[in-house]
Amino acid sequence: MMAKEMIRQGGRSARIQGEVHRAVQDLLTGMDRADITVPMIAEKAGVTPSTIYRRWGDLADLLADVAVAHMRPISDPDDTGAMKSDLEAFILQYAEEMSSKVGRDMLTDVLSGGNTAAIKCCGFTTQHLETLRARAAARGEADLDVELAIDLIIAPIVYHILFGDREPSADYCRGLIARFLKA
Amino acid sequence: MMAKEMIRQGGRSARIQGEVHRAVQDLLTGMDRADITVPMIAEKAGVTPSTIYRRWGDLADLLADVAVAHMRPISDPDDTGAMKSDLEAFILQYAEEMSSKVGRDMLTDVLSGGNTAAIKCCGFTTQHLETLRARAAARGEADLDVELAIDLIIAPIVYHILFGDREPSADYCRGLIARFLKA
Repeated sequence: MMAKEMIRQGGRSARIQGEVHRAVQDLLTGMDRADITVPMIAEKAGVTPSTIYRRWGDLADLLADVAVAHMRPISDPDDTGAMKSDLEAFILQYAEEMSSKVGRDMLTDVLSGGNTAAIKCCGFTTQHLETLRARAAARGEADLDVELAIDLIIAPIVYHILFGDREPSADYCRGLIARFLKA
Repeated sequence: MMAKEMIRQGGRSARIQGEVHRAVQDLLTGMDRADITVPMIAEKAGVTPSTIYRRWGDLADLLADVAVAHMRPISDPDDTGAMKSDLEAFILQYAEEMSSKVGRDMLTDVLSGGNTAAIKCCGFTTQHLETLRARAAARGEADLDVELAIDLIIAPIVYHILFGDREPSADYCRGLIARFLKA
């Protein structure tokens, strides 16, 4: 009986999450995020504001949760047959997506929410790099140092996107990759 | 007559900015930033909410402006007599300040506001590094490549602080400096 109750809770809980996420996305496409409020989201999702506060804490945490859900990878990075080209394909796509308006907004939302969202977000990047590392190992290529790739490639790209002082162009990214491969 | 009016405007404008910044800081010390609203700040500062909206846009921009004002350097980094030790002193202090609760909150506020605040904020860091570079040049030491220092030292520190996946310890920072000096 208790197990059944828990399963039903899970189903309702997943449904609420889906409705609330959808309501946030709908509102984000039509209006400025600074004007969105929890009661507005609650009304659109058909839940009470207190359901949202209880589950997500505050608006920043909810927006961060929605952004993380969008960033969750839906597929592995492309397999191009060699570590260097795998890395280049992944990094150029990463820089392009993250520097788009949508990417920047997601990054800001993730960083404005609690620490959990931010850790999940950089976990996705690490996970992709681990995939490239495993592939390189399976091909008998040199080891791909994931922590070093984060410090030498990912961190500068994210820094310049967030602080807006420099566009992470394809050439700039290729330079970071070359520096990483030489390290 | 017109010049006088403009001077008086300037004085009033600076006074309003001072009062509003002070009101934000007072509120931030006593309550959670998620609970702070523009009308609350306006009441404490003795201005109307529309004065704040007109001048700062929205709450995120105002919080970013207050954070940037706090980050503005009040003195040059310490002169320790040599480029390597200058860099180490500056970077260790930077990492410590930015990874404190106050530093993290300021970073988040800066990044949640408009692009202007973010560009100003990374401009302060560049400015400090330029000071170290000028000192090194005056001493006849090797050139300090400021852009490279941003990418190899500052970006990884900021990345790990923002994403919370790794503490930028003094040893970790020294490793980044050693990598930069070898590059």
